[in-house]
Amino acid sequence: MSTERLVIVGGDAAGMAAASQARRLRTSGELAITAFERGHFTSYSACGIPYWVGGEVDGPKALIARTAAEHRARDIDLRMRTEVTELDLDRGRVRTRELDDGGRESWTGFDKLVLATGARPRRPRLPGIDAPGVHGVQTLDDGQALLETLEASAGRRAVVVGAGYIGVEMAEALIHRGYEVTVLERTAQPMSTLDPDMGALVHEAMCAMGIETVCGTTVTGVLTGAEGRARAVTTEDAEYPADVVVLGMGVSPETTLAGAAGLPLGESGGLLTDLAMRVRGQDHIWAGGDCVEVWDLVSGRTRHIALGTHANKHGQVIGTNAGGGYATFPGVVGTAVSKVCDLEIARTGLLERHAEAAGLRFVTATVEATSRAGYYPGARPMHVKMLAERRTGRLLGVQIVGREGAGKRVDVAAVALTARMTVEQMTALDLGYAPPFSPVWDPVLVAARKATRAVREAGD
Amino acid sequence: MSTERLVIVGGDAAGMAAASQARRLRTSGELAITAFERGHFTSYSACGIPYWVGGEVDGPKALIARTAAEHRARDIDLRMRTEVTELDLDRGRVRTRELDDGGRESWTGFDKLVLATGARPRRPRLPGIDAPGVHGVQTLDDGQALLETLEASAGRRAVVVGAGYIGVEMAEALIHRGYEVTVLERTAQPMSTLDPDMGALVHEAMCAMGIETVCGTTVTGVLTGAEGRARAVTTEDAEYPADVVVLGMGVSPETTLAGAAGLPLGESGGLLTDLAMRVRGQDHIWAGGDCVEVWDLVSGRTRHIALGTHANKHGQVIGTNAGGGYATFPGVVGTAVSKVCDLEIARTGLLERHAEAAGLRFVTATVEATSRAGYYPGARPMHVKMLAERRTGRLLGVQIVGREGAGKRVDVAAVALTARMTVEQMTALDLGYAPPFSPVWDPVLVAARKATRAVREAGD
Repeated sequence: MSTERLVIVGGDAAGMAAASQARRLRTSGELAITAFERGHFTSYSACGIPYWVGGEVDGPKALIARTAAEHRARDIDLRMRTEVTELDLDRGRVRTRELDDGGRESWTGFDKLVLATGARPRRPRLPGIDAPGVHGVQTLDDGQALLETLEASAGRRAVVVGAGYIGVEMAEALIHRGYEVTVLERTAQPMSTLDPDMGALVHEAMCAMGIETVCGTTVTGVLTGAEGRARAVTTEDAEYPADVVVLGMGVSPETTLAGAAGLPLGESGGLLTDLAMRVRGQDHIWAGGDCVEVWDLVSGRTRHIALGTHANKHGQVIGTNAGGGYATFPGVVGTAVSKVCDLEIARTGLLERHAEAAGLRFVTATVEATSRAGYYPGARPMHVKMLAERRTGRLLGVQIVGREGAGKRVDVAAVALTARMTVEQMTALDLGYAPPFSPVWDPVLVAARKATRAVREAGD
Repeated sequence: MSTERLVIVGGDAAGMAAASQARRLRTSGELAITAFERGHFTSYSACGIPYWVGGEVDGPKALIARTAAEHRARDIDLRMRTEVTELDLDRGRVRTRELDDGGRESWTGFDKLVLATGARPRRPRLPGIDAPGVHGVQTLDDGQALLETLEASAGRRAVVVGAGYIGVEMAEALIHRGYEVTVLERTAQPMSTLDPDMGALVHEAMCAMGIETVCGTTVTGVLTGAEGRARAVTTEDAEYPADVVVLGMGVSPETTLAGAAGLPLGESGGLLTDLAMRVRGQDHIWAGGDCVEVWDLVSGRTRHIALGTHANKHGQVIGTNAGGGYATFPGVVGTAVSKVCDLEIARTGLLERHAEAAGLRFVTATVEATSRAGYYPGARPMHVKMLAERRTGRLLGVQIVGREGAGKRVDVAAVALTARMTVEQMTALDLGYAPPFSPVWDPVLVAARKATRAVREAGD
């Protein structure tokens, strides 16, 4: 039997998890694995960058799960600083360019191909947006560059554009660095991954932490000063002085290559795959991680969700299939958790606007409860909002905003969504109870009880 | 319509939750509610007693969810310090005795009856066991008496008999009070609610905390000294000096009255009910809380589990049904969580011995993982053990021993058990991920992956 050639485009979580898993199943005599990564780092935790910038984590080394040398020791031919510039699917080859070596170009043939090209930060075409002092935080290289700006900066004013996950995490990081932080957000509340009523709780808490949070405002540009460096961010009606500007407006799938090769893309621009993570219509091409759309088990649609935990699962599934085994990724329910200082923020399933877009009729219930028995030291309040389908009472989504012990409670709802439970079924869930861990009725169950009543009262 | 009479025997969680819920549904003109409680307190958190004794919680007031006066303000005729001494089912009445009032006896008629008589601590018939200085910790009265002993005691040596939930929680409480603590346990490891290999981790941690933990030993008696007070606990081969002795050997259902009235009891002595919490074979008698056996959804058998969270749910269901509505308690999966100092201990579903007794063939997988991303400050190790059925791969149980962030992770498994998921289905669960909350693969998912491989390797 001749050696098959597996080529992987992108050397971060999805790509290298696929490489590692395929190597577990096939020897290098059976399967030659070549992976191309255009950056300086591989298999790293992009999600850890805010904590590195904030000084809570040593970086970048600690954020690297597996080094290039470790991959190579397992017979994975990993080519760093090598960009794939073209996919030639007809002839089964990819064109590459070496970024550090005079731009030498060459072609590499494949029998099987994995696309794990990740995502790119959204960066609106605005005046001054490319000025020194304006930073994205998508890669370890970005993190390093931001840290250099912070260390060189004499001033202590930071503006964060965007109040989504990355925005609020970067706000926390900059607070830890001693900056005065202003966050500018286009929508009416921070965390547009929550319904506005829950986002308002985050808004209030951020202001109480001393983070100036301005919502419903559109950034119009970056003003530059000495040496062309950023000195302020402008909106339609104000100007915010800034010694450093951080862009946290989310990411879009990086699928330029795939699109040029005619592979199928969804509404968000992410690659479309089947349940085995094969690109739709392709037998020997898989895709995973931040460059794909995933099946949303609650709405019945595909969505783009950039999350390391999905990327790792995709890589595992792809590596198994590319290695000749069988695995599937059944889809997501849309779980995410984050924090800004001591405020924990979590959601799973559908927001109100998602449920409406999916054609679902629903009721909502919001409760305030505590993380532990009310009398136990450290009991902290949290708000839990629950969406349930009318008539059937099926759980549609949960959002939680609170302090210590709030965030991971969303996991109960994530499993219940996966199992398509009704909120009434949830009221009987046998969750762990003891005073240091929960009130007698866990906050998620309190919300389920209220949602059950709301379903009943709403009738048909 | 004449007023119906609802009589409730036992004024703690199950009984008073039933009373409250029935009152929500029916006015006092429709339903007269009378509740009898033989103790001094009502609607209190017995689970909070160790934290009160340990000085972390002010008591007993903080542990009382609702006072007698609050119940009475809602037209519930609550008779404190009144013991029900006989159930006369044929004539629909209960005989009561007033404990503080010269023992006056009388009869009260009912149309509907709720039995919520709770549980009694196991107290082996051993020499000296009733001596002053030997304490159970089942009721607030017990807690008060123990605190008085601790305050009066000159010495600082405590012996706890039994290393189950109450035993280890009391060990922590006594450590907080500055005592040298010895725990004596009959079985091979502390926490016999875990498999021995997981119990061994608890044993090791307790010893490291300075709690002398002696397992595989049988207590033979209590030696008494001055004024007949306890001064030591004896086992088959040793003698442990003690200024105070705490009994933490678990509880048995208190069903003396029900048994005498011929109501059906299970193997543990707990009352048997249907899914609406009606006593089997009875139309107008319900039972709930620590005095009943509950349906175990994993093993298909009934079990006795004394837990405040179940008692509250039972009360809710009973009150709804007694109030003319409809509700059921579908059963439990056997979730419990506890801690001893900073060690968190949790389980759900079946232990190995339970699975064997249920006729199930299974595989096990144990993993060590961290509560947060390995690089994030405060990431703590935890052990997760998972049982899965052979061939089908259905999840049968999970046990977790670890530090901060370990315990409540059991909830994910509790929901998965309820939904009868396989461990392979669990590997794809969309759980909340961010570095401060979880590694990319949550510890429960790491265990599910290993269990999936174990199922596959075990074949038929």
